[in-house]
Amino acid sequence: MFKIIAKDKNTKARSGELTTPHGVLKTPLFFPVATQASVKTLSNEDIKECGTQAILSNTYHLYLRPGVDILKKAGGLHKFMGWTRPILTDSGGYQVFSLAALMKVREEGVEFQSHIDGSRHFLSPEDVVELQLQFGSDIIMPLDECVHYPAEKDYARASLKLTSEWAERSKERFTVYGSRFADRKQQPLLFGIAQGATYLDLRKEAVERLVDIDFDGYAVGGVSVGEPDELVSEITQYALGLFPEEYPHYIMGVGTPVDIFDAVSFGADMFDCVMPTRNGRNGTAFTKRGKLILRNSIYTDDFQVIEEGCGCLSCKCGYNRAYIRHLINSSEILGLRLVSLHNVYFYVKLMRDIREAIETGVFSEFREEFLRNYR
Amino acid sequence: MFKIIAKDKNTKARSGELTTPHGVLKTPLFFPVATQASVKTLSNEDIKECGTQAILSNTYHLYLRPGVDILKKAGGLHKFMGWTRPILTDSGGYQVFSLAALMKVREEGVEFQSHIDGSRHFLSPEDVVELQLQFGSDIIMPLDECVHYPAEKDYARASLKLTSEWAERSKERFTVYGSRFADRKQQPLLFGIAQGATYLDLRKEAVERLVDIDFDGYAVGGVSVGEPDELVSEITQYALGLFPEEYPHYIMGVGTPVDIFDAVSFGADMFDCVMPTRNGRNGTAFTKRGKLILRNSIYTDDFQVIEEGCGCLSCKCGYNRAYIRHLINSSEILGLRLVSLHNVYFYVKLMRDIREAIETGVFSEFREEFLRNYR
Repeated sequence: MFKIIAKDKNTKARSGELTTPHGVLKTPLFFPVATQASVKTLSNEDIKECGTQAILSNTYHLYLRPGVDILKKAGGLHKFMGWTRPILTDSGGYQVFSLAALMKVREEGVEFQSHIDGSRHFLSPEDVVELQLQFGSDIIMPLDECVHYPAEKDYARASLKLTSEWAERSKERFTVYGSRFADRKQQPLLFGIAQGATYLDLRKEAVERLVDIDFDGYAVGGVSVGEPDELVSEITQYALGLFPEEYPHYIMGVGTPVDIFDAVSFGADMFDCVMPTRNGRNGTAFTKRGKLILRNSIYTDDFQVIEEGCGCLSCKCGYNRAYIRHLINSSEILGLRLVSLHNVYFYVKLMRDIREAIETGVFSEFREEFLRNYR
Repeated sequence: MFKIIAKDKNTKARSGELTTPHGVLKTPLFFPVATQASVKTLSNEDIKECGTQAILSNTYHLYLRPGVDILKKAGGLHKFMGWTRPILTDSGGYQVFSLAALMKVREEGVEFQSHIDGSRHFLSPEDVVELQLQFGSDIIMPLDECVHYPAEKDYARASLKLTSEWAERSKERFTVYGSRFADRKQQPLLFGIAQGATYLDLRKEAVERLVDIDFDGYAVGGVSVGEPDELVSEITQYALGLFPEEYPHYIMGVGTPVDIFDAVSFGADMFDCVMPTRNGRNGTAFTKRGKLILRNSIYTDDFQVIEEGCGCLSCKCGYNRAYIRHLINSSEILGLRLVSLHNVYFYVKLMRDIREAIETGVFSEFREEFLRNYR
């Protein structure tokens, strides 16, 4: 299912291939975020043009809207949205805990009110796995509780206990359904999410428990939730070091290009983050020489494309900074789209370049050069 | 400059070719509206893919933002926005009178406060022509006063007197600048706008005065400003009947597909309207069988494309109604874009079909069939 293709000689960076029902993913890999079945402002054609291998969507959001019935009638999420490549769905645990109102966590699962219309819902870990199976997701994430920073150790320990039990129940339900897939290649992957807040001993316990249960891949959850940068890096490195090497490693919700280089060097294979699209909608563009805040008045009469030599549609078609700034200042949607397009391309291209650097044995040199220019 | 290619045998419909600095326009023709140098939600590539021959932008808006200095530095509006085909710019008279605050009309011109930042401005008819020359517009419209419905005849008469004087001054200034264009083919066109509210005698007076001044084309202004449908049709037909036949005839701000068929049959050649894009952003799609309000719950599980057999990007790529409805309900920008794309394609294709029907001698039959299905 996961094959390591190349390993870096100086770090734990590696490249690999992860086989999913909708195709093989080359890692390290970035998933643009399509929370509500759309990578914000972009069409499928736009994101394919960026070289995107796979996208991430969200169970909590899809469950509330359009709802699983519509997705089933459509023949699954892929057919509903017309996306033919792999989709990873997050369980929506994070969203239940951050967006939903009147949330109550019980051992059985989580009770909450919809942030859209206030309707009451209950989801068990089993429900969350079944929903994702019905969506036709390629990579399924179990329900977990994402602990915010800072968290008391007692709370973090209790939360981890629950998350671990949910992980086990998720695997059980997934296994029951596994037999439905006549062809093993059509069976989605189920990942385990290691929580544990900022406590290394809890992180260790979390991973050991997950490895016992046995998942198709392992994810670090609950980082970048408000803790200082050094802690993010320390926990990421520590947790990744505990994951079994021959399985794919996923860092959820991370991050900046700098974070990505760090995590790759610690052995991470998969990333998702709203940063390229959220920044795009704020008019902030990623370039090899750092971020450009295109609302800034210095771009008023700057008629260069966002980044010379960039292969994204915005730069290839010649849209200039002054025009994009004008569009953003004038609340013209095209401006948000052009910067989002550029940023998604930037992230996808960065991952491709990292992969190539690992495979040609020059990851450290590439990283150093990139970071020197970027900072 | 304007060549009539074919005339319908039953109506005054005709097809033609209008030569502009950025290319030859085949008429009848629809201009998608790019008020602020962007056809809302769409890229240049999107609107070209729709078959768009030319777009319309707005002097009032461009003058305020990004401003003429930026446009001059960019090398003109075409280079600023990366659009290589013809651009018609409206004078912005309508916007000064409807959007700007503390507006004062004097014989010299119009004084107003920006709707963006409250800054004070004065524009004479001469200024408005010069602005459009500096933008590098292909078709220039003079400053006029658009009288709203209903209007007292005395007011309408006084307003028309001013508009006619401004038209004359616009032509004079345009002529002074005309000598700057070494190559006649690089010289933009200046159209005259016939006002006169709902009074046929004033409409007649307006056209006679404009024809005396001698413009490159003639436009009907001040229709569809709140008057009943029958009046729109009556005034349009009357005014068009007064225009010299061998010049291009432009109906400003019109309209529905039904309005367009009417106006074409009265001899109109050019149209612009926000309808396809504004409806697109409301989730209303034009089809051969009338409008679809995609927010409607009947589309919740309708997995057809907007219109079977349609060649627009949204339909060609297979985006279905249920998904588009989901996007619109979820405030996802892609939904607005997909419907806008479809609608602009629909309008542009409608004009192409009308043109072909005229040229193959079947305009009346085509019109009848279209309207039978559409209503």
